Amino acid sequence: MGKEITSRQQDYAQWYNDLIIKAGLADYSAVRGCMVIKPYGFALWENMRDALDRMFKETGHVNAYFPLFVPKSLFEAEEKNAEGFAKECAVVTHYRLKTDPDNKGKLIVDPEAKLEEELVVRPTSEAIIWNTYKGWIQSYRDLPILVNQWANVVRWEMRTRLFLRTAEFLWQEGHTAHSSKQEAIEEAEKMLEVYADFAENWMAVPVIKGVKTANERFAGAEDTYCIEALMQDGKALQAGTSHFLGQNFAKAFDVKFSDKENKLDYVWATSWGVSTRLIGGLVMTHSDDDGLVLPPKIAPLQVVIVPIFKGEEQLKAIAEKVNGITKELKAMGISVKFDDSDNNRPGWKFAQYEMQGVPVRLAIGARDLENNVIEVARRDTKEKISVSMDGIATYIKNLLDDIQESMFNKAKAYRDAHITKADSWDEFVKLLDEKGGFIAAHWDGTPETEDKIKELTKATIRCIPLNNEQENGTCVFSGKPSTQRVLFARAY
Amino acid sequence: MGKEITSRQQDYAQWYNDLIIKAGLADYSAVRGCMVIKPYGFALWENMRDALDRMFKETGHVNAYFPLFVPKSLFEAEEKNAEGFAKECAVVTHYRLKTDPDNKGKLIVDPEAKLEEELVVRPTSEAIIWNTYKGWIQSYRDLPILVNQWANVVRWEMRTRLFLRTAEFLWQEGHTAHSSKQEAIEEAEKMLEVYADFAENWMAVPVIKGVKTANERFAGAEDTYCIEALMQDGKALQAGTSHFLGQNFAKAFDVKFSDKENKLDYVWATSWGVSTRLIGGLVMTHSDDDGLVLPPKIAPLQVVIVPIFKGEEQLKAIAEKVNGITKELKAMGISVKFDDSDNNRPGWKFAQYEMQGVPVRLAIGARDLENNVIEVARRDTKEKISVSMDGIATYIKNLLDDIQESMFNKAKAYRDAHITKADSWDEFVKLLDEKGGFIAAHWDGTPETEDKIKELTKATIRCIPLNNEQENGTCVFSGKPSTQRVLFARAY
Repeated sequence: MGKEITSRQQDYAQWYNDLIIKAGLADYSAVRGCMVIKPYGFALWENMRDALDRMFKETGHVNAYFPLFVPKSLFEAEEKNAEGFAKECAVVTHYRLKTDPDNKGKLIVDPEAKLEEELVVRPTSEAIIWNTYKGWIQSYRDLPILVNQWANVVRWEMRTRLFLRTAEFLWQEGHTAHSSKQEAIEEAEKMLEVYADFAENWMAVPVIKGVKTANERFAGAEDTYCIEALMQDGKALQAGTSHFLGQNFAKAFDVKFSDKENKLDYVWATSWGVSTRLIGGLVMTHSDDDGLVLPPKIAPLQVVIVPIFKGEEQLKAIAEKVNGITKELKAMGISVKFDDSDNNRPGWKFAQYEMQGVPVRLAIGARDLENNVIEVARRDTKEKISVSMDGIATYIKNLLDDIQESMFNKAKAYRDAHITKADSWDEFVKLLDEKGGFIAAHWDGTPETEDKIKELTKATIRCIPLNNEQENGTCVFSGKPSTQRVLFARAY
Repeated sequence: MGKEITSRQQDYAQWYNDLIIKAGLADYSAVRGCMVIKPYGFALWENMRDALDRMFKETGHVNAYFPLFVPKSLFEAEEKNAEGFAKECAVVTHYRLKTDPDNKGKLIVDPEAKLEEELVVRPTSEAIIWNTYKGWIQSYRDLPILVNQWANVVRWEMRTRLFLRTAEFLWQEGHTAHSSKQEAIEEAEKMLEVYADFAENWMAVPVIKGVKTANERFAGAEDTYCIEALMQDGKALQAGTSHFLGQNFAKAFDVKFSDKENKLDYVWATSWGVSTRLIGGLVMTHSDDDGLVLPPKIAPLQVVIVPIFKGEEQLKAIAEKVNGITKELKAMGISVKFDDSDNNRPGWKFAQYEMQGVPVRLAIGARDLENNVIEVARRDTKEKISVSMDGIATYIKNLLDDIQESMFNKAKAYRDAHITKADSWDEFVKLLDEKGGFIAAHWDGTPETEDKIKELTKATIRCIPLNNEQENGTCVFSGKPSTQRVLFARAY
């Protein structure tokens, strides 16, 4: 703690890694591509998870839990989905180790304990869940099923980065079943709204709601809705997706229902998920060269109070006053810590809490006590002011609201300033290289053009925004006619 | 729903399975030995998890998350632990599937994607965690580490039963690191107290706190503390364990700290866990031939209100009255559902909520409305009485407390009546076969005798109770001298 990190200017990627480690959010592990989520990072995830979980329940969803393993024969049943994940999945082939006869104290895989059918560690759970739903659904009366699961999943990514792309990650995956196409589409759209609400109003991360092109769609989906955020280096980050799955999984697993007229039809499906990746997006949206900047509504610790004292007597007098304040703050539902440890000097503590992104830091010394004031420092703007201790709790409560709001506004101003129209290929390339951000450009609607642009620039179509303005134009790459601009960006 | 289940008398094991399925707690899955935890079962688990999580946090613990996979070389580092789990672990050997060239649409394991080192799916996380702690601990200032993890684990059990023994299960595992032996032992004991508190005061399941014999100890522990419960068929169930691990894992992973005098020593450890198995114990402690009986403090739904009506008009009048009651109950923090669906008749609903173990059922018809009364049925005793609607919310609040308490008392009376002393081998065998429960008998302290008794009777030493009374006697099997009775039972 208290040590410096690489600046964003110097090396953005290194800044990010330094920050994650130094702030104590996560740690590398002995398992390739897997991370350890440390207590501070996990407390942040708990706050995010709990807020989302409440939103899911308020929209009528319930939680359940399905097996970690997917038998290969189920995994391959929905062909596009299988094709999409086959190249990156961990496979369990044996169920026992035995002592190595040639190497005392070592173990080897017992060749006699080979599974008849291999098990895939779930990269996503549509297959195992739709195989289960088959037994739960007979009639329209059994629908809708509105189930969510909080779970770990594994995707054998070759290039991993803490939180952003790890071989194992934590997420939630909603899997719903419906009696009509329209209802399923509405569900997928509703959950996209929930995600956008959460990103903007809890994480203070502005997002663009849109729909993916066929190229970028979830494997097995008819349509993938997404929320896209913009990081400080001008790269986009897909923060959440909601899929309308049509009847693809119902057909793959033969899940039919009889409707009110007793006619049999395949069930309609959605799935939707956000993951610990959100933490990466949160960090890269708000943080600075001194460390994390966390929005108050999900910060593990909202207020820290640091005493500045010489000797026990002064500390005692300060503590007495502070106890009253912490009590008031806690009664308001604000999390607060009084750091009276004498292991470290105040300056060290300041740096530590800045690194950890605690939204508000209060400092109080003997003279402040005499003057009935306290120093209030906000993490986001680094402003420090001296405030009267009368009514300090209410002051802080309002300040936290203010920080939440201004963090969002700042991020939104940056994001809005980085949506730029490009009307020629030169302009497109120049913008990408010099300014970054989202580029709103006409596209001819073909996967070929999209592929070609990706190949040449590494930019992809992040989304076609919902309620997108329709205008006639020509594709920025092919010159063919187009009816709307789509958003391109380089992305995480 | 509403269908009958096998009676306990007829076939206890079948009763249990029927009940789990019919009450909607869990379902079988396509993966051998793995279950699906259905929404009702998961809501129960959420309540248990949340209560435990609060207790862990109140005792100073924080949550974190460690990788699902344990590289084989780490897995085998602590020899006893490895030996204990090697025979039942799922092993990941490959990280990719590919299209089967001989079978279109099918996938096979890609032989070119073989891992250099196999990964064990965690059966427990001491190895991966202590390998991580090595990087976190240098000095006594870094201690204690008081970390808990909520996770899924996999143990390849050959004979599985819903909740009681499944190949994958959900649990929490605490892993703490300390600078002294004494502190670690105190931690292990403290967490045993937390478990006992939770079992008795939330689950209404009386437990005996004790310590395991060497035979029954966790692989890698110096001492295993446990709480043991008694099921209605006279078999015991280990409901939670807390291990003093000594310096075994610190030595295996070379985790040392420098103390205040700058002397290096290995770190002291504990681990402790409870799992979804608790749900099995809960079901078998309280439930009856009509279904689940759930203690109010963890029941997903505490009160259900069923209207008995003819026509819309009557329903409307009832609903108006009921809305006031539900509002009052919710304000008291009581979960309540008004089941006004017209798909099913009241009798069907009654049976359904009995099956699901909802602690209190209210029924209200047109005449009740006239008389300002409501019918209150408690699930545990099946008592029904007519109660004035004035002050009904407070009445129900007290009733829920009463149910919680009397469920515990009933289970405790049964348990206490099933701890029987045996002073001869004949008596021991007879008690086991005819009465069941715990048998308090002298034992000569040798693993050989313990093994022999297990072989002959399937009874094991469940624990040596904490603060066990000391008395001279002779071993019930060998006739050798003994200083205390220990508790034997057949167990799940």
